[in-house]
Amino acid sequence: MTETDRRFMALALALAQRGLGNVWPNPAVGCVIVQGGRIVGRGFTQPGGRPHAEPVALAQAGATARGATAYVTLEPCAHHGKTPPCAEALVAAGVARVVTALTDPDPRVSGRGHAILRAAGVVVTEGVMAAEAEAQQIGFLSRLRLGRPMLTLKLATSFDGRIATATGESRWITGPEARRRVHGLRACHDAVLVGGGTARADDPLLTVRGLGAVRQPVRIVASRRLDLPRAALAASIPEAPLWLMHGPAAPAEALDWWHNRGARTFEVAESGAGLAPLALLSVLGQAGLTRVFCEGGGQLAASLLAADMVQDMVGFTAGLALGADAQAGVGPLGLTRLADATRFQLVSVQTVGTDLMHRWRRI
Amino acid sequence: MTETDRRFMALALALAQRGLGNVWPNPAVGCVIVQGGRIVGRGFTQPGGRPHAEPVALAQAGATARGATAYVTLEPCAHHGKTPPCAEALVAAGVARVVTALTDPDPRVSGRGHAILRAAGVVVTEGVMAAEAEAQQIGFLSRLRLGRPMLTLKLATSFDGRIATATGESRWITGPEARRRVHGLRACHDAVLVGGGTARADDPLLTVRGLGAVRQPVRIVASRRLDLPRAALAASIPEAPLWLMHGPAAPAEALDWWHNRGARTFEVAESGAGLAPLALLSVLGQAGLTRVFCEGGGQLAASLLAADMVQDMVGFTAGLALGADAQAGVGPLGLTRLADATRFQLVSVQTVGTDLMHRWRRI
Repeated sequence: MTETDRRFMALALALAQRGLGNVWPNPAVGCVIVQGGRIVGRGFTQPGGRPHAEPVALAQAGATARGATAYVTLEPCAHHGKTPPCAEALVAAGVARVVTALTDPDPRVSGRGHAILRAAGVVVTEGVMAAEAEAQQIGFLSRLRLGRPMLTLKLATSFDGRIATATGESRWITGPEARRRVHGLRACHDAVLVGGGTARADDPLLTVRGLGAVRQPVRIVASRRLDLPRAALAASIPEAPLWLMHGPAAPAEALDWWHNRGARTFEVAESGAGLAPLALLSVLGQAGLTRVFCEGGGQLAASLLAADMVQDMVGFTAGLALGADAQAGVGPLGLTRLADATRFQLVSVQTVGTDLMHRWRRI
Repeated sequence: MTETDRRFMALALALAQRGLGNVWPNPAVGCVIVQGGRIVGRGFTQPGGRPHAEPVALAQAGATARGATAYVTLEPCAHHGKTPPCAEALVAAGVARVVTALTDPDPRVSGRGHAILRAAGVVVTEGVMAAEAEAQQIGFLSRLRLGRPMLTLKLATSFDGRIATATGESRWITGPEARRRVHGLRACHDAVLVGGGTARADDPLLTVRGLGAVRQPVRIVASRRLDLPRAALAASIPEAPLWLMHGPAAPAEALDWWHNRGARTFEVAESGAGLAPLALLSVLGQAGLTRVFCEGGGQLAASLLAADMVQDMVGFTAGLALGADAQAGVGPLGLTRLADATRFQLVSVQTVGTDLMHRWRRI
């Protein structure tokens, strides 16, 4: 692996990043085509998952793709779907070398994309920036390997970890820049998830606003009995899909009401005081989601943490204390020993307006 | 004010910083003497507050001080104490120009140091990097202006603002690097303050360890009835002073016991469930303290925050969640409206080992 390979792969990864949140159930892939040291084509998976990154880049490159090197963040696909496989398209375009970051774990591809290329005499280099690509593709990989999407938990809290005063006032603990950043985080996930308590307290739209979003993330509310405020959530269904996760005892009236307004509903097994986190995420994985952004509340956050279902945590910390009588960002976990707590590693930290933004990843 | 002046004053401020925590009730001052663009003397207030920065720097400069420029972070003193005033020492050394950051608010000096210099024909430039000097001297200034030390509140918490599990386990939420940083923070304060609950739970020594500290900070425990663990705190009194703040109802037996072992005790008025924060800090100010570092627990932190007695907050955040049933870093504040919460401004953020360290200042 040369420094040049790493540089172009980094560019392909940056392109791939643009697809996150817009391409489920497909992976967000990036492709760069280089001829004589010059970039002649760029592509990334388009909204909805098609076209793939490679044909976009090849179309840009045109005849200059002949003899070129293609950098692709994931092994090119090998199966005939709506379009011919990307591995064959690269061969047909006369690409001389293909550099990839990851082997596609999808059993329809796994290794066969690379094999098609090699069989056609294309030089293949695998595993360039594999760790970075793995981190970027963690949602897609999680769904294939574990049957569930990766989950990011957001907590926007006071200095002492509170999300609202004792009387429920939460607007606004963090500033407008942090809230805008939250919309950006929503946009790079396939779906936004909140618990019923948060839906009742905030009646949130959960849409991406102010960013010209290509595809609104699916809005998911987890509520055992579907005792939810209806007006705002239902009115915005034409704008952004709404999926309701409920327990076996949800009233038929509520299910009918929501169905009639275009919401999808999913029955999920219960566990303790709420829906079972693993069952909930497995249902979402079956429905095709790869990246889910949970915005609370405290009870849902606690149940997801206790079940070790949280991959990333994003904290926004504001410069005020609200005290122990204010509402906790994470509900009771029943931990007695520190050694039993799941540890997360700090990934990045930055200031956002007047607040602190910090990202952590499951170790 | 020239860029050169700012550069040398920044150096004087860096020197002054070394005195913080070691010089109370005196201010921590820095002095740089520059001759022909070359630094010929450096000084800062020595442990215990004497000698002052200027004679240290003048002694280093020797005869080269003649015609030189002296940069001093605070107006040179003008009153005859144990030694002649620094303003006269600068004149006697033949310094041609003196640049200062702040006018000393001490009524024994205020403006008279500058006047002595000017009367002797020394050129005086005031107010260079005044804001930075003010921030550094905030403890000394707070004591002179408000009669109480500045207070820094430290919170070492989980991601969700918890300082211990429900069963009280707190060792260790943050890592060894963060704990070492806490010792550094103790060392640059005059005193370390904890509540009785923390003293009972942790039996902390509260000393500075592993940093070759010149002068141990005063250890202060606030406990209405002095129902404290005695062994470790008493045994370490020869190493580091121990001051006990108690209410009117503290038993005479406890007072006698602690006096006999060399602790100082201070009676403080009560307010609600604890000692009155303003009364407590006023007593500490009268005793000469300028910088106090509070390490909790939650009840003391809450009472200090509620009384708006917190100037700086230092957070150490670790990558784990402990949940709403774990112990809160800040006790109940009784806030109903967000607008009533005191706001702090982010001053700095950095990673310390595996943890996040963030500093905030009262707006």
